Amino acid sequence: MVLPKELEGAYHIVWLGEALRLLDQRLLPYEERYLVCCDDEEVARAIREMAVRGAPAIGIAAAYGFALGVARGRDWREVSRSLRGSRPTAVNLFWALDRMERRLAEAERKGEDVREALASEAISIHLEDVRSNLRMGDNGSHLVPDGGVVLTHCNTGHLATGGYGTALGVLRSAKRRGKRFLVLVDETRPLLQGARLTAWELERDGFEVVLICDSAAAFAMRRGMVEAVFVGADRIALNGDVANKIGTYGLAIAARANGVPFYVVAPTSTFDAGVASGDRIPIEERAPHEVLTIGERTLPLGVSVWNPAFDVTPAELVTAIVTERGILERPSEPSVRAHLGLP
Amino acid sequence: MVLPKELEGAYHIVWLGEALRLLDQRLLPYEERYLVCCDDEEVARAIREMAVRGAPAIGIAAAYGFALGVARGRDWREVSRSLRGSRPTAVNLFWALDRMERRLAEAERKGEDVREALASEAISIHLEDVRSNLRMGDNGSHLVPDGGVVLTHCNTGHLATGGYGTALGVLRSAKRRGKRFLVLVDETRPLLQGARLTAWELERDGFEVVLICDSAAAFAMRRGMVEAVFVGADRIALNGDVANKIGTYGLAIAARANGVPFYVVAPTSTFDAGVASGDRIPIEERAPHEVLTIGERTLPLGVSVWNPAFDVTPAELVTAIVTERGILERPSEPSVRAHLGLP
Repeated sequence: MVLPKELEGAYHIVWLGEALRLLDQRLLPYEERYLVCCDDEEVARAIREMAVRGAPAIGIAAAYGFALGVARGRDWREVSRSLRGSRPTAVNLFWALDRMERRLAEAERKGEDVREALASEAISIHLEDVRSNLRMGDNGSHLVPDGGVVLTHCNTGHLATGGYGTALGVLRSAKRRGKRFLVLVDETRPLLQGARLTAWELERDGFEVVLICDSAAAFAMRRGMVEAVFVGADRIALNGDVANKIGTYGLAIAARANGVPFYVVAPTSTFDAGVASGDRIPIEERAPHEVLTIGERTLPLGVSVWNPAFDVTPAELVTAIVTERGILERPSEPSVRAHLGLP
Repeated sequence: MVLPKELEGAYHIVWLGEALRLLDQRLLPYEERYLVCCDDEEVARAIREMAVRGAPAIGIAAAYGFALGVARGRDWREVSRSLRGSRPTAVNLFWALDRMERRLAEAERKGEDVREALASEAISIHLEDVRSNLRMGDNGSHLVPDGGVVLTHCNTGHLATGGYGTALGVLRSAKRRGKRFLVLVDETRPLLQGARLTAWELERDGFEVVLICDSAAAFAMRRGMVEAVFVGADRIALNGDVANKIGTYGLAIAARANGVPFYVVAPTSTFDAGVASGDRIPIEERAPHEVLTIGERTLPLGVSVWNPAFDVTPAELVTAIVTERGILERPSEPSVRAHLGLP
């Protein structure tokens, strides 16, 4: 089987025919080590343990995993169940597996070579994702300010997709068209995908990158440092509510409050027409140890850091200030003066 | 010199007469180790390197440091300069040193024992802070919801003050009055004062504590999990703008957006009448290594964690969604349906 041209450059999800090679993203940026998954259970484990992550990448890996599991002679229902149980939020996972199941039924009905048909289907899913990213890049690149600063959260690049990226794909396309801009990258606690993956991947591609703590993003907007926010999505409800990495909602509120455009970049496969609004999207709650511990270094060398130790909250957002003299509600200059006994 | 009763319980800032004993907060929660500072330079270093932190605690430590430096025969102007240079944002530092300088001038004018006068003045500053915290606790405890959940950021407790705390002091007073509530604690990147200090201190005092990543706070509010936010302040401008730990502004926007009251608890010494608005407050930018590295464990054992991996951004906060089909502005159910070609 010859891989299509667009997939030749892919390095983190590589179909080997009898197995799937995955870049183990948990070890980045320290080490580039690859996992070779020989069946659906190894792929499910790689998804569950986040060796591969990012909604589109998960869907693609699961499709290949389905092809591997069926090729190994496992019952397709069990294969599907094990893969579907690996991460609950990413709709691409379910979308890709639905499609693989349909292809399986079709191949059986038509008496095709099931193994070949499923491998082809997984490759198609992968290829369509990369092509779709390239189109999103085309569609969105004019939104990137030339000579400005954009902010992004988590990882939505090569590593999160079949290749190229969604939000980072838009930034890639803008750069290809000669725009110059700086990318503020949220470190994205607890797993630090921004610091470990986005900074790594953007540095590698020659972007100007500055890492910030997640909590500094709102203040960066307040300071007028950010012209636009670009994020991905894990699932989008029918009314447009967007489920994405923890912290996205806070960014959106901060962007609105500061008049900063907030762009979501995601393929249509991310939409879940079966979900009316965001309230219906199940939210994964992960293990405490992710918050209780962190690795050592969180970032490749050479990346800059903006590290303000404080920020400023405008008075209008303060319900009350409690002092030893009492409570100062809705503080403003007159009420503060009165509270302090100043003329 | 006999210490006043209110200071007997203080363990993190202890005046020894010839030296100042400080709990080295950088080592918490792993180890309770103490520094003994014999002159102003050792105190300035402890402040700069954040062995002691929290605006009121910094002011108190600096006052003791001033007394030590002058007692060692150093020129008071140099003593003051070295201490003033240790942290730029906390106004309490300048306020305490102004007061020590005035007391020095007075003692010299009146021919008093300068050493004794300065030690007394520093103890007074310390004592007034603890008393003021107890009063803030009285004033604010009715704001704490009984049977609910409050959220706090950074550390504003015993460790941040002369003792008892500002925002945490209010929670202490509410608990003393029999209220039961759970405290959501932001981990507070990059130095993790929430995880390392607030969780440690509240657990020790029998509070129910749940640690979250900073980026999860907005989503917790959106979910209706939070009844009130309580934070401290490092400096408050005349118009009521509040400078506080990075992340506070984002919390305030999120609180406003979700109808959650946002309370600032701070002594009047935190107000800087010389600053008209928050834009004029200098913001400290600290070293990159704080973000590039983190310790090992960030939390004492036994503390719970809420660790959602994603959140939901309402459509109304999304400026546009970019897909391979184009750009979907201000997404809503009708426009999403149209974009997807659904009936």
